[in-house]
Amino acid sequence: MVAINSCFQRLKRTYIFSLIEEKIATLHKKISPDPLINLSIGDIALPLVPTVAQAMSRAVLEMGTFSGLKGYSPSNGYLFLREAIANTHFAILQITPDEIFISDGINTDITNILDLFSLSSIVAIPDPTYPAYLDATILSGRTKIMTLPCLETNQFHPYPPSEACDLIYLCSPNNPTGVAMNRDLLATWVNYALKHKAVIFFDHAYEAFINSVDVPHSIFEIPGAKECAIEFCSFSKSAGFTGLRCSYTILPKALKARYEDQEISLHTLWHRRQAAKSNGVAYPIQKGALATLLPQAQSEIKAQINSYLAQAKALKQGLIQLGLDCHGGIDSPYIWVKTPKGKSSWEFFDELLIKCHLISIPGVGFGKYGEGFVRFSAFTTPDKVDLALKRINQL
Amino acid sequence: MVAINSCFQRLKRTYIFSLIEEKIATLHKKISPDPLINLSIGDIALPLVPTVAQAMSRAVLEMGTFSGLKGYSPSNGYLFLREAIANTHFAILQITPDEIFISDGINTDITNILDLFSLSSIVAIPDPTYPAYLDATILSGRTKIMTLPCLETNQFHPYPPSEACDLIYLCSPNNPTGVAMNRDLLATWVNYALKHKAVIFFDHAYEAFINSVDVPHSIFEIPGAKECAIEFCSFSKSAGFTGLRCSYTILPKALKARYEDQEISLHTLWHRRQAAKSNGVAYPIQKGALATLLPQAQSEIKAQINSYLAQAKALKQGLIQLGLDCHGGIDSPYIWVKTPKGKSSWEFFDELLIKCHLISIPGVGFGKYGEGFVRFSAFTTPDKVDLALKRINQL
Repeated sequence: MVAINSCFQRLKRTYIFSLIEEKIATLHKKISPDPLINLSIGDIALPLVPTVAQAMSRAVLEMGTFSGLKGYSPSNGYLFLREAIANTHFAILQITPDEIFISDGINTDITNILDLFSLSSIVAIPDPTYPAYLDATILSGRTKIMTLPCLETNQFHPYPPSEACDLIYLCSPNNPTGVAMNRDLLATWVNYALKHKAVIFFDHAYEAFINSVDVPHSIFEIPGAKECAIEFCSFSKSAGFTGLRCSYTILPKALKARYEDQEISLHTLWHRRQAAKSNGVAYPIQKGALATLLPQAQSEIKAQINSYLAQAKALKQGLIQLGLDCHGGIDSPYIWVKTPKGKSSWEFFDELLIKCHLISIPGVGFGKYGEGFVRFSAFTTPDKVDLALKRINQL
Repeated sequence: MVAINSCFQRLKRTYIFSLIEEKIATLHKKISPDPLINLSIGDIALPLVPTVAQAMSRAVLEMGTFSGLKGYSPSNGYLFLREAIANTHFAILQITPDEIFISDGINTDITNILDLFSLSSIVAIPDPTYPAYLDATILSGRTKIMTLPCLETNQFHPYPPSEACDLIYLCSPNNPTGVAMNRDLLATWVNYALKHKAVIFFDHAYEAFINSVDVPHSIFEIPGAKECAIEFCSFSKSAGFTGLRCSYTILPKALKARYEDQEISLHTLWHRRQAAKSNGVAYPIQKGALATLLPQAQSEIKAQINSYLAQAKALKQGLIQLGLDCHGGIDSPYIWVKTPKGKSSWEFFDELLIKCHLISIPGVGFGKYGEGFVRFSAFTTPDKVDLALKRINQL
């Protein structure tokens, strides 16, 4: 009988979001109709902005005409979108359209990127962080995994280890802690990667939420980053595209890795991988992504981001007033809340769920160093923030 | 310096479609404006049918409203689509909605499915066939690859080998040869897989083109297939979705593989993998896929399929009249044409391109046993079939 990939047996955690869904389903059978307030999964709470919805509708109807029919898209995405991204976000940084790869989500690319590297590479992963990095690393068969603890004592930031490693996952503004690395810290990481000829996978999903002036809007603002980093960006959180699936990966041509005594272009390898394994992203989705870059759409989207950030601020202030120790929420829609009275993540999660009908995420779901915290998301509406605070106050 | 996945060095072929694009680009610089006729890549030539375009436009505009906003879709797809597929295509076969996984393309799933299995598994792959199976197998690090030659002497069908293997790629109606396996041959494969406890990856992208009564519309029509097969279906060719990206994978709950002395459900593993590595398919795309199942859309789509099949028939008959040896084109949009006078695939391809301004695909691009053939695609319009035949006649 064919054998399974035994790495599945090394995945100790049930995927956190599935576990939470089960708990909620169980609760739904028991509780009063008092509606649940969901401050958990980082999903949008506001509709697609009008300029983008209209552009996508036009694109779909265009596909219904002979002159506008569209078949396979290029596996790296339409040039119109890659050019627009290069010209809007990356003109000063001199990223060219052919260094941009369109994809259906950061999750897809930031896990598939492992395909390019040796199975013996040492992978450094922050803890707590987005669970897919570790799961994908384990499933890929890699066993040399270095944990980067993100603790109160280091303001929840990962710092370069004293030993060498090959591949480094970084997420800033961070999910789940909501903190963002400033220019100095990112430069420390870039210098570490250059020294050890390692590659940084920089998850920049929450770039649109950056407020602080010393937090870069791209890792490529740091000198040398083009020789050691791949940046993963998305329209999911920046333009409310979670239900539409469009992201882009910046893989500079200067980036190299070793094969025997040669240096190989990772850009070429990724092109080759994508040509064999991807058929690109739907045309109307790419037209929608293009529309997000229009000035009118940018102003509609900015209003949404600002409203999420205003809620993050209100929620954080309210929680602090209730005596809770809170982090993040400035350059991020997430607030990282220390559990009161030394409770475990799940104890506080259960209390919030059962007594307040409030869904958070237990910090331990993002890694063992997330124990003793829960994550609140500001992807909600102001009335729900008020109600959530009132209910927590009654605890 | 971090090392690359050395399997990339084992990929001998440049991806065939990239090579062809380069040849055409070179030619474009030299030739007269006589327009090229593209009978190569299997892409659609007709626009999205009206019922589907309108449904998708409605879905996009719905996402622009508060009551209709949609965030992340379930990683296995919306229940509305899985139920509709189960009820239309698979009711008799008793495939349940939770055995159906929605994805952005067969290519994605039929290559990612390898993640579930041991790296030491023996993979059987037809030759010639769709190149992604072999490329993905090589990139995954697997080295035990068994070739199943599809030759004139066996009507271009793969037959079970005498030795055992673990994983088997089958594509029927086949790309590129255009031939379809009948019930008896599929039953032979199912029995082989059951005997050796192997798993068949059944690529059914071209199911909508099946005309012959003895060719099954699902591998699950064969008794025992639910214990040994995964079927990969798509809206790409059946509903003109190549530019929209939607497919579905049927992974029966009865399917098991080994881990030490236990039997493990592959259905559970695939769920786990998809939860960690996929964020699902865009909502408007899934609504579009749902609309393809409506009676009105089915009649619009059937007319398109029939027109492609009529062109396949006309092209095949024309080529035969010109003295060429042709196969396929009955249950498939593809015609597999033997090169005249013992020419190589690339020689005949170049001749067709340079003298007839006609793009085909060299058979050898699909595997070494494709040498001496080219593939013609009927994804075109009747006027182009006529013109292509006239030009070949002048060779």
